[in-house]
Amino acid sequence: MSEEKKKKVALLGMGTVGSGVYEILQKQRKNMPAKIGCILEVAKVLVRNKAKYADRLPADTLTDQWTDIIDDDSIELVVEVMGGIEPAYSYIKAALQKGKHVVTANKDLMATHGHELLEIARENHCDLLFEAAVAGGTPIIRPMKQCLLGNDISEVMGIINGTTNFILSKMSEEGMDYAEALKLAQDLGYAEADPTADVEGYDAGRKLAIMASIAFHTPVTFDDVYTEGISKITEKDIRYAHELGYEIKLLGIARLVDGGIEVRVHPTMIPMEHPLSAIKDSFNAIFLHGDSVDDVMFYGRGAGSLPTGSAVVGDLMDIARNMQYNCTGRIGCSCYQNVAIKPMSETKSSYYIRMKLEDRAGTLAALAGVFGSNHVSISMLIQKAKEDDQTAEVVIVTYDVAEKQFMDSMTVISTMSMVHKVSSIIRVHH
Amino acid sequence: MSEEKKKKVALLGMGTVGSGVYEILQKQRKNMPAKIGCILEVAKVLVRNKAKYADRLPADTLTDQWTDIIDDDSIELVVEVMGGIEPAYSYIKAALQKGKHVVTANKDLMATHGHELLEIARENHCDLLFEAAVAGGTPIIRPMKQCLLGNDISEVMGIINGTTNFILSKMSEEGMDYAEALKLAQDLGYAEADPTADVEGYDAGRKLAIMASIAFHTPVTFDDVYTEGISKITEKDIRYAHELGYEIKLLGIARLVDGGIEVRVHPTMIPMEHPLSAIKDSFNAIFLHGDSVDDVMFYGRGAGSLPTGSAVVGDLMDIARNMQYNCTGRIGCSCYQNVAIKPMSETKSSYYIRMKLEDRAGTLAALAGVFGSNHVSISMLIQKAKEDDQTAEVVIVTYDVAEKQFMDSMTVISTMSMVHKVSSIIRVHH
Repeated sequence: MSEEKKKKVALLGMGTVGSGVYEILQKQRKNMPAKIGCILEVAKVLVRNKAKYADRLPADTLTDQWTDIIDDDSIELVVEVMGGIEPAYSYIKAALQKGKHVVTANKDLMATHGHELLEIARENHCDLLFEAAVAGGTPIIRPMKQCLLGNDISEVMGIINGTTNFILSKMSEEGMDYAEALKLAQDLGYAEADPTADVEGYDAGRKLAIMASIAFHTPVTFDDVYTEGISKITEKDIRYAHELGYEIKLLGIARLVDGGIEVRVHPTMIPMEHPLSAIKDSFNAIFLHGDSVDDVMFYGRGAGSLPTGSAVVGDLMDIARNMQYNCTGRIGCSCYQNVAIKPMSETKSSYYIRMKLEDRAGTLAALAGVFGSNHVSISMLIQKAKEDDQTAEVVIVTYDVAEKQFMDSMTVISTMSMVHKVSSIIRVHH
Repeated sequence: MSEEKKKKVALLGMGTVGSGVYEILQKQRKNMPAKIGCILEVAKVLVRNKAKYADRLPADTLTDQWTDIIDDDSIELVVEVMGGIEPAYSYIKAALQKGKHVVTANKDLMATHGHELLEIARENHCDLLFEAAVAGGTPIIRPMKQCLLGNDISEVMGIINGTTNFILSKMSEEGMDYAEALKLAQDLGYAEADPTADVEGYDAGRKLAIMASIAFHTPVTFDDVYTEGISKITEKDIRYAHELGYEIKLLGIARLVDGGIEVRVHPTMIPMEHPLSAIKDSFNAIFLHGDSVDDVMFYGRGAGSLPTGSAVVGDLMDIARNMQYNCTGRIGCSCYQNVAIKPMSETKSSYYIRMKLEDRAGTLAALAGVFGSNHVSISMLIQKAKEDDQTAEVVIVTYDVAEKQFMDSMTVISTMSMVHKVSSIIRVHH
């Protein structure tokens, strides 16, 4: 294949995703002329420490100087797989301004500066693709921007963090407690030494912001997303959930309700019959409702070197085709409106509450009174046998109610003398 | 919006899918300038009997003359939703030759003449898109041709016929027999008066041929697909399947094995843990394995006016964007090789057999002898209590074996005097 049929790619970063991308590009090289009419060739790989990669990569490919890439006009595509905001943000911005096309797997960056970067891409007639930033290898960005574009989407709901889904699966299936399941996830490499971003829902929140922006054609950033993690979920709550016909999952939920957007990540009880309840281990799945397509779900690996690399390479191949047809920038930012984001207090949900109550006459009536005066209706109540300390464990599930009204009633309830402990509050999705 | 920002669309057919497309295009009209930079306007609708639609469609839109469409150069997009081979084939061919872009939901046509039509599209720099031809509203064609293009796909396996999945779900969940479940499907409009194409697997076979072509970059037509329907599945087999930890589904399976392509549609026992086993009612799901992405699954509505219309409109919107960027024909036929199709006799599978045997010593030994001499190994055997007529019901599951060897052994077994009846043979997927 002649030189002009080669497109030079620079990789920024050679960690988990970067090495997956590199491996796939080598492996697919022989099929590329037939698949996309050209060869994507890794010309430069930017790393901090060249020596570390000397045995894996050709010496003339490795560089620790960004200028070797940004100033090289023969490099037409840049893959950013460093993660984090800086220097990724500055590099991508500079690359686009020089007319280089960019593929990124960086959810932190896209959830914060995505709209600005897409605007810079548009001005420079460049592609900026980020399929890998949400749900790893699972196709979701392109399906939403193209296949489902004829829909008004009302809900996007997903298991978009594999670490927490692995932990919750182990708790649900094997009766592990949270600490034990987290330890296992860390031992297997599913969770990092500092698991905060995963278990507190920040990672899921970033992916949700990106999906909500596309679904509702409105800029949504990570700051707009309410996040609540799984560290307070107990094995006991999971057993109650099963008894009630639910599974507990960390869901990212974005909904269009009464002209406003709800975006929230929190542990959620979903009915066993819901397709998302069957998603096990570290798999991701995104469930979507459109006015025409009805329900649709995408399932796959949300992380990992090759799965995430698969999404990056899919984007690169698409750009290569666009370049040959001179139509880069064909699909950019799809936000053409500004729907208001609802504050969490105005969102509506059903709630599961587990409490320890004094076991005497009038306790439940008093509770019911507080709920009633805040317009909280009870759909289900389970009272378990008395415990040693003369308290009874009670589980209540409410009907849908505004978060504010529910929380107001809980503020009162938690101060009542017969309420010894509010052990858990978990939102329920019907 | 000025006249030049309108793109004229002709609809061929106004049945279930056609009316869905029409409804979505009306509903999305206000969003189209923001979504795709132009308005897709239905200029003509070709129907057989204009009077039938007079109250639903403007008089100047309705026509019963193909020449009103093919000879009108202002019509740039044609949507074929008539179904069947002719006149759909001739119309699409003529439209492409005149430089009109085409969207079709016609699986029969694409599974038979798809490659030829895509070649004509290429010659004329036209788009010919058919997302709606497989799994209705569920995105699958575009994800395979774009998002997953960096993979070598080794398996595509799907529940791609909603009618049969509905019937099997009712048999599995409510213990209905086949006739009863088929009757219910017909009463609810899921099955046609003549259900042959669905229940015999022809419809699934067409969709599988289309998917296999894309997955393996090789022309695969409906004639290449082995098909076996569900009409012989009994409620008893379903009960045994559950006992063994399986669900019975009509699967379309396309695999790349030892450099050859297997393409087959047949009832299949799949493990309860497999994501496809949880797909209920008339939903469709396609499960795919790629060397990089690992497992991925797409789930949604495989039929219906609006879901299928959603896929057609997604394609139309994509073409509208391509037209404005002057890059139509950007993604056409993706078959660049010719991998051999394996004859069914060479495919490998595990088999479930249910038989009535004479209940006397030596029967099982004789069976085992025949299997053994054909290299069929038994992985599981269940013998149920003797029945009234001095026979015993036996269920056997084999290990993976070539179809030919298995069938050879069954030919011998079925003629043995102690074998009163071979009640069922169902393939098992591990």
